[in-house]
Amino acid sequence: MPNISIRGRRMPESPIRKLAPFADIALSKGLKVYHLNIGQPDIKSPKIAIDAIKNIDLDIIEYGPSAGYESYRKKLAQFYVDQDIAISFEDIMITTGGSEALLFALGSIMDPEDEIIIPEPFYANYHAFSEESSATVVAVSTTIENGFALPSIEVIEKAITPRTKAILICNPSNPTGNLYSETEIRQLGDLVKKYDLFLISDEVYRKFIYDGDPFFSVMNLEGKEQNVIMIDSVSKRYSMCGARIGCMVTQNKDVIATAMKFAQARLCPPTIEQIACEAAIDTPQSYFDEVIEEYKERRDTLINELLKIEGVVVNKPKAAFYCIVQLPVDNTEDFARWLLDSYELDGETVMVAPAAGFYSTPGMGLNQVRIAYVLKKEDLIKAVHILKEAILVYNAKK
Amino acid sequence: MPNISIRGRRMPESPIRKLAPFADIALSKGLKVYHLNIGQPDIKSPKIAIDAIKNIDLDIIEYGPSAGYESYRKKLAQFYVDQDIAISFEDIMITTGGSEALLFALGSIMDPEDEIIIPEPFYANYHAFSEESSATVVAVSTTIENGFALPSIEVIEKAITPRTKAILICNPSNPTGNLYSETEIRQLGDLVKKYDLFLISDEVYRKFIYDGDPFFSVMNLEGKEQNVIMIDSVSKRYSMCGARIGCMVTQNKDVIATAMKFAQARLCPPTIEQIACEAAIDTPQSYFDEVIEEYKERRDTLINELLKIEGVVVNKPKAAFYCIVQLPVDNTEDFARWLLDSYELDGETVMVAPAAGFYSTPGMGLNQVRIAYVLKKEDLIKAVHILKEAILVYNAKK
Ligand SMILES: Cc1ncc(COP(=O)(O)O)c(C=O)c1O
Ligand SMILES: Cc1ncc(COP(=O)(O)O)c(C=O)c1O
Repeated sequence: MPNISIRGRRMPESPIRKLAPFADIALSKGLKVYHLNIGQPDIKSPKIAIDAIKNIDLDIIEYGPSAGYESYRKKLAQFYVDQDIAISFEDIMITTGGSEALLFALGSIMDPEDEIIIPEPFYANYHAFSEESSATVVAVSTTIENGFALPSIEVIEKAITPRTKAILICNPSNPTGNLYSETEIRQLGDLVKKYDLFLISDEVYRKFIYDGDPFFSVMNLEGKEQNVIMIDSVSKRYSMCGARIGCMVTQNKDVIATAMKFAQARLCPPTIEQIACEAAIDTPQSYFDEVIEEYKERRDTLINELLKIEGVVVNKPKAAFYCIVQLPVDNTEDFARWLLDSYELDGETVMVAPAAGFYSTPGMGLNQVRIAYVLKKEDLIKAVHILKEAILVYNAKK
Repeated sequence: MPNISIRGRRMPESPIRKLAPFADIALSKGLKVYHLNIGQPDIKSPKIAIDAIKNIDLDIIEYGPSAGYESYRKKLAQFYVDQDIAISFEDIMITTGGSEALLFALGSIMDPEDEIIIPEPFYANYHAFSEESSATVVAVSTTIENGFALPSIEVIEKAITPRTKAILICNPSNPTGNLYSETEIRQLGDLVKKYDLFLISDEVYRKFIYDGDPFFSVMNLEGKEQNVIMIDSVSKRYSMCGARIGCMVTQNKDVIATAMKFAQARLCPPTIEQIACEAAIDTPQSYFDEVIEEYKERRDTLINELLKIEGVVVNKPKAAFYCIVQLPVDNTEDFARWLLDSYELDGETVMVAPAAGFYSTPGMGLNQVRIAYVLKKEDLIKAVHILKEAILVYNAKK
């Protein structure tokens, strides 16, 4: 039998999906499982987008342009202009999810053995995308004690080597819920300019900010236009994860031209879903106000409840809909599995994502989990209660 | 300004899209352009699929499973079983177009510098996908004189080196319109078994066969199950190119498990379109009968008309909806550009795809073009007439 590729063998398994077989055990016992582990919002997609799908007026579902429909790119450019990001539609490439935008960006700039600096913990698939692009991840650690703030710029600068090609940040951050300040972003901008690097900013959670904190996009770094690439997606903004529509935005024409070659090879992003996304841009502000209000209450509920558990360490997230929680257990991989295959409280249990998978440095995050607050408040209260009782039982059995 | 990656610079430009700026010139002059250059059918998508989209009953466009909806995979497995391909849904991974299936397959098996043998001329994006997977294309040439039949198995065997990892065929073939015989496929099966290679067969045109010739899929090679990977897509079958739904099919569990890691990283294929594709499986046979009849007539018309041009060499294609045509001109890249930027016949001109881009060996195909017969008969007649007149003018001006 011929061999699998080295890259294929090295590709990481998603830390969340690894638990799936154990979730199946819980389900096969008839248990109700509260999913605190995934970023699939239960928020309705905007009616205007669903209606656009229902009302499509097409006989043939034809290929669209490789960079996405021009009408959509133009409307999207205006959407950013309205948020004080001065770009034109030519700076936007529509992609199959933010995922593909990340792949195109890395494929366009990273050579084998090139290094990409990423603050950890980070979105686990950055590992996979780097592997697919033969790039090496160099993690700079951030800590729960520091609210996952960026390390000082000197520490980041020390991580730069002759092979460093880019810095990748997620702002607002999955999995920490942190939001970088304008000062932090400006410092990163100066750094990439100084060392002639790319700064990729994954801003797919840009709309989810809870306490009125200002959001500063890398697209607003004047004089760094050639260094900056922004990644965005409709998945979370409009709760349209299954649409698989995202985009890569940059004023660097070489990056756009190179990404175009990757885009042409795969022909085009899904067309029906682009029509829905174009319509979604007209989603009224009231939709977002309600969504933000809902998430804010969920966040407050979650943090309140978590702090009732002795030994828990957690920061109140400022943005996105995740937080990293330190639990009073030794090994959250074992604990998360045990929750699914050996525990129940009145027929219910909880699924959490062990945080080690969000770190690149071995040994980090072993006593942490990532929790996504994408459930209703009542469910969050129940889920955290189960977590609390479970921790007692788990630690007692040792 | 930081550099573009080597891979990004090496990624080929699509031979078809390279002409786009010249098509813009023709359009800006108000000319009507007959597009013989692209594989976008003008056939209607099945009503059952369009209706499935119009009738979607969803509040939230959620992420689906990374391997595709299980209900769709099961129905698709039955679709293949009905065509005597004995597989289960677990052998199927739904992908974002056949394009992504090719990327996943190559990513799962090819290491840097590994070689993949491909009969040329071939679908131009195989170059791009190989580049993205750091694989080296080794072309074995087929010729118009031989009806683009596979070279003898000895010739293919000679192309095998210690770095050869796979053979990739397109059956039925874009761009040649050829269909491989059962004997040819069996010989390839024996060869990959003998050398422990993968045989990837791109069968996205499997439904488009015009003269009742039998179609023999690599999935029917008994005893070669661990070596064989099939690529399929709804793009052409249901004229649903914009849906971006394809699949990778293999009974090799290691390949499926590895491709799953690539699939999980990009989360899932588009969901609305999967619903449409699941519905499309129930498309009545009468739809295909009509489509095949239509293409057959177009093919016959096209070939008839082409043979009226002095100096043209062309084989009657057996399948798919393309053919390679040798023209009495020196350089079809120059000719194709000239057709767009300098020629017109009563306000009309023609766009063809220069064939050199479908070959890997430099210098091959310089006097050939690929023609896609995806236009109505009347338009094909007009387009070939323009071609005929244009050749006279083009050659006279020299
Ligand atoms: C930080 C981050 N980036 C990118 C993505 C990819 O999202 P999509 O491909 O659905 O746009 C996700 C999805 O969860 C994410 O959390
Ligand atoms: C031979 C061949 N393979 C694969 C594809 C990819 O098609 P898709 O990604 O739309 O399924 C095409 C499209 O033209 C093709 O001609």
